[in-house]
Amino acid sequence: MALRGQFITFEGTEGVGKSTQLANAAATLEALGVDVLVTREPGGTPMAEAIRELLLTPRDEPVNDLTELLLMFAARAQHLHTRILPALEQGQWVLCDRFTDATFAYQGGGRGVPVDRIAQLETLVQGDLRPDHIILLDAPVETGMRRASQRGELDRFEQEAVSFFQRIRDTYLERAEAAPERYSIVDAGDPLEQVSAHVRDLVCKFHSDLL
Amino acid sequence: MALRGQFITFEGTEGVGKSTQLANAAATLEALGVDVLVTREPGGTPMAEAIRELLLTPRDEPVNDLTELLLMFAARAQHLHTRILPALEQGQWVLCDRFTDATFAYQGGGRGVPVDRIAQLETLVQGDLRPDHIILLDAPVETGMRRASQRGELDRFEQEAVSFFQRIRDTYLERAEAAPERYSIVDAGDPLEQVSAHVRDLVCKFHSDLL
Repeated sequence: MALRGQFITFEGTEGVGKSTQLANAAATLEALGVDVLVTREPGGTPMAEAIRELLLTPRDEPVNDLTELLLMFAARAQHLHTRILPALEQGQWVLCDRFTDATFAYQGGGRGVPVDRIAQLETLVQGDLRPDHIILLDAPVETGMRRASQRGELDRFEQEAVSFFQRIRDTYLERAEAAPERYSIVDAGDPLEQVSAHVRDLVCKFHSDLL
Repeated sequence: MALRGQFITFEGTEGVGKSTQLANAAATLEALGVDVLVTREPGGTPMAEAIRELLLTPRDEPVNDLTELLLMFAARAQHLHTRILPALEQGQWVLCDRFTDATFAYQGGGRGVPVDRIAQLETLVQGDLRPDHIILLDAPVETGMRRASQRGELDRFEQEAVSFFQRIRDTYLERAEAAPERYSIVDAGDPLEQVSAHVRDLVCKFHSDLL
């Protein structure tokens, strides 16, 4: 079936304000009469949320990099095929907190998994489906980590070192610069009202471009 | 590091007596002075056992075939890299209840996932590592299902129809016939003492062939 809705993902390191801007984008689109599904990765279905739990829980056993990568795509296959694709086919716009760019950034840039392995799994799970728009909320790593640490207990990823998040930020920026037609970089270090206005402008433009 | 131990896997549909014959093979090898690790898939480490739970628990949400396949290989990557390979490197013989043949049989033959997708993940996770010997315990599907159903609650796989297990048995037999140098087919419909004697003979031969 044709995909009638738009698929927009929100990316960025810890504490850059993805949840706030997802809610802001959803409210903006709803005001324009768009039927919106807000979801997140890893997760988005009960099965995929159970996989998320496995991934985020700190544990004594070191998690193999390939295990982590395969779990990410297992959750994605479930989310994509049982929730995202049916919504897009029905004409809903899907706003997703992280998607495959996060895998390239975290498992590729962060962990050092070779990019071709990630690309191979991307094709296996998604075929040629890619987000229509990727909004990258970018801020210095220290800013985001300070905000994330104020939220309480850190998960298995949030416990990593600054250098890990620096590599993630660099990977996100490289990917965005390599395909500017699909990525919008938002300076998440700006005052909140300015960031929110930028995101509102972006989603309004995505909407008006289709009219 | 070189792998000094032998890697032997036990395959077959439900209720063919894999656990009994794994214990039998382990006891036989230990009597010959071999250091043995008995383990199982999916599982074999706390993280991989948690993935096993996700896979086997019956649930309302239909599990996407690709999700199931990726979870199997996620558990395998963890088990292989944190437990099986270190054991083989130390000279232990690893006896494993199911391995990648089960993925070709269950997800390939049973669910209809294309074989090349499974082979792609096999190479991603295992490189060129394959079991040294595969012991296929073969019995008519009805015999095994009768035994499995006497063990109590059925898991998500055991709840499948007879035709699902028939396709699995057929796939196992096709794979065994295509590579007879690595597969030994044991008639698991024979009386138990005869099956056990057959398995003892096989592992004694694997051992003496190395002397």
